[in-house]
Order: sequence, then structure tokens, then C-alpha cells
Amino acid sequence: MLKLYIGNKNYSSWSMRPWVLLKQAGIPFEEVMVKFDSFGADSEFKRVIGEVNPGGRVPVLADDGLAVWDTLAIAEYLAEKFPDKALWPKDRKARARARSVCAEMHSGFAALRNHCPMNIEASLAQAGAIVWRDQPAVRADVQRIVAMWTELLEQHKGPMLFGEFGIADAYFAPVCMRIRNYSLPVPGHVTDYIRRVCALPGVKAWMDDALAERDFVAMDEPYRTTR
Amino acid sequence: MLKLYIGNKNYSSWSMRPWVLLKQAGIPFEEVMVKFDSFGADSEFKRVIGEVNPGGRVPVLADDGLAVWDTLAIAEYLAEKFPDKALWPKDRKARARARSVCAEMHSGFAALRNHCPMNIEASLAQAGAIVWRDQPAVRADVQRIVAMWTELLEQHKGPMLFGEFGIADAYFAPVCMRIRNYSLPVPGHVTDYIRRVCALPGVKAWMDDALAERDFVAMDEPYRTTR
Repeated sequence: MLKLYIGNKNYSSWSMRPWVLLKQAGIPFEEVMVKFDSFGADSEFKRVIGEVNPGGRVPVLADDGLAVWDTLAIAEYLAEKFPDKALWPKDRKARARARSVCAEMHSGFAALRNHCPMNIEASLAQAGAIVWRDQPAVRADVQRIVAMWTELLEQHKGPMLFGEFGIADAYFAPVCMRIRNYSLPVPGHVTDYIRRVCALPGVKAWMDDALAERDFVAMDEPYRTTR
Repeated sequence: MLKLYIGNKNYSSWSMRPWVLLKQAGIPFEEVMVKFDSFGADSEFKRVIGEVNPGGRVPVLADDGLAVWDTLAIAEYLAEKFPDKALWPKDRKARARARSVCAEMHSGFAALRNHCPMNIEASLAQAGAIVWRDQPAVRADVQRIVAMWTELLEQHKGPMLFGEFGIADAYFAPVCMRIRNYSLPVPGHVTDYIRRVCALPGVKAWMDDALAERDFVAMDEPYRTTR
């Protein structure tokens, strides 16, 4: 059976993407959680993950001894292995666009990622308001995301970015979390999309697990001293 | 015909990847160079690129009105469009590994990228020695790259990372440039691989064009005031 190595569900936005993709697509897998302690070379996290991924990061998908790492490579691997699940859009042009926006997410939006780290159980509206006021790069990131989602939702008529659920929605699910937890201001149709994403069983299952966690990982908590 | 929008050849490491891939694979394309002026919202660069890529970055591949952006999405698009070119390895496991290392490059090696920006025409051995002495994160990035290349070159018996030239080699070509221009210390078999990459006609053509450029882009020149 497929094995997916992930970090803490409350914090690990990269882990969330393939987990939600597998769950929502109904692909059976076994979850292996390796909790964040530190990312120091001698940490337990690095020791355990280093055995499957020499890059030392989650997520990692293990398929019968083959390790596939980094979310985009995992997404492509799953799309190839389960063609009937249509994880990428079937239309050639839509598929190219879906890959473009996922790759844009994969290498971009650094300001949003740095200033608003994912923290599913936290209410960070005040921190979000200060970030929004003081960080033009965060506002620019959100503006780009709003424009992208607006265009895709209109073009494909929703409910998801390319019509039905797929890799792109899994890819932007952690962004939905950030906008929600930091109460970043977005137009109503974007809030509606975020609500639909949160209501997907695969996303809801991840969020429920995140809420049930009790760990406080200081390096992922720039705005709190405790939970 | 395919159109590829790129930035300055001396500096734009992301542009280099798909350009080298197309050239070396013998896929005809038209190059559209949009020189870096600044990345400010009102720059000429952003104005021109914004018309084809709302994310405002190079490279962008335009295929008969369809814009595909970000190097990984472009690579996947080309691999799909030209299956006979075998841009990804044909073997399923090797293909998964190639995607893993490309995705790792796409989202990682931030220290190497920040401290040693690509600058093909420059001799930056002294800057490189200081970076190497003072930046453990750069040493860790290079150590990981050396381990990755060593394993792949042994496993696939060279001359390229997965045997024959493919996306992974195009993806790491700018890293070869960095190691070379900053004279970062790597083992002999890695220097040999870098030499083979530099000798590929597609890479050589890019390097020759880069050397012929005369622009000095200050934001990409942390170690020089002039060329």
C-alpha cells in the first residue's frame, strides 16, 4: 500500500497537499506522521525522514520501496498511476494551466508563506490585520491569488478551480487555511470557494485531525507563546 | 511556432532551464527576450511579461495562444507534447526520481540561490570562497547536490544524470554555472559532470549568448559594481 510521510497536520502545509489529494480522490494509503521537533541536522525529524528522503523534508510518498518526494513530483506520480481519477484536468489546455498555477504556488508566494504560516487551529485575525497593514508583498500575493481563482472559477464554472476537484484545489487548500485563519480580506466569491474547499471530506478530515493535535511547535508560531 | 519568453541570459537561471531543454532536444522555438530592468510593478519587464503571465515572471512558453508558465509546468507540457523526445526517463521509477529531484530544485536550495546568483560571464572565485567559509547553509546545499548527482551518475552510468540528456540536466544546468563561476569546491567526478553539461550544444549556445551580453543588472550583482 502507498505510504505517505507527513509532518504535524496543524502546521505542515506541504504535507497537507498530497494527503488531501489522496483522501479526496479515494486512493487508499497509510499515513506515517513524523512530528516536527526541530529541523537541525541532529533532530529526530531529520533522522527519520532522512532515511526515506535524502533531502530531509516531508512529504514523501513511498510506493513499494520507491520514494517520491516533493509535492509536485508526488502529484505527477499519482496522476500517472491513477489515470481514472483525473487528478489533472482531462483537457490539454486546462491541464497546462493547472500545472502552471501549481508550479507558481510551488515556487512562489513567499511573503504569504513567511508572514502567515499555516496554523489551522489558531485564530490569528489580529496578527493577520497587522500583516495586511504592514506587508505590501503579502497584499500583492493575495491579490494575485484572488485574480487567479476568480478567473479559473469563472472559466470552469466551479465549484472547484478547474470544475471538479483536482490537484490544483489540493495545492491551494493550505492557502485557503491561511486566508481563513488570519482573516485576510478577500471578495465574497473567494470566501465561498474557501468554504467549499473546507467542506470537502478530504479537507475536513485533515482539519479535524489538525484540531485534535496538541503540539505547540515554536518555530511555526511567530504570533503566539502558547495554544 | 513555440515562443519562449526569457530574461537576460547572463542572469536568468529560470529562463535557462526550458531554453536549454528545447535547444538540446532539437525542438524549434522562437525566443522572446524581455530584459530585466527592475521588478517593480511599473517596470517595463513587468508590463511586457504581465501581458502573457499574470504572475509577472519569466520563463513563459506560448503555444498558439496558450501561455504556460513556471519551468516545471513548461517541462511537463513539453514532455507531453513531444513524447518521442523522451524528455523524462522512460522507466517509471527513474521518471519519478527525476521529477523528485527537479521539484526539490524548484522549491529548494534557497541558500545557494541567494548567495550565489547565476552570473555566467563573471569570475567570482573570491566571493565564492567567502560564501563557502561563512555560509553553512550554502555548504549544506552543495553537499546535498553532490550526493544527489553522485548517486544518479553511478546508478545510470552517466554521462547525464539519468543516462541520456533530459529535463533533470536542464534543470541543474544553472547550478553547474554557479558551482563553476563561484569556484565552489566539489569532487572531481562532479567537476567532470559540469564539464559535460557545459559541452552540450544547447548549454554552450546559451553560455555563448550570455557572454555576448553587455548589460549590468545591479540587483543581480551582489559582488560587483561593474563588469
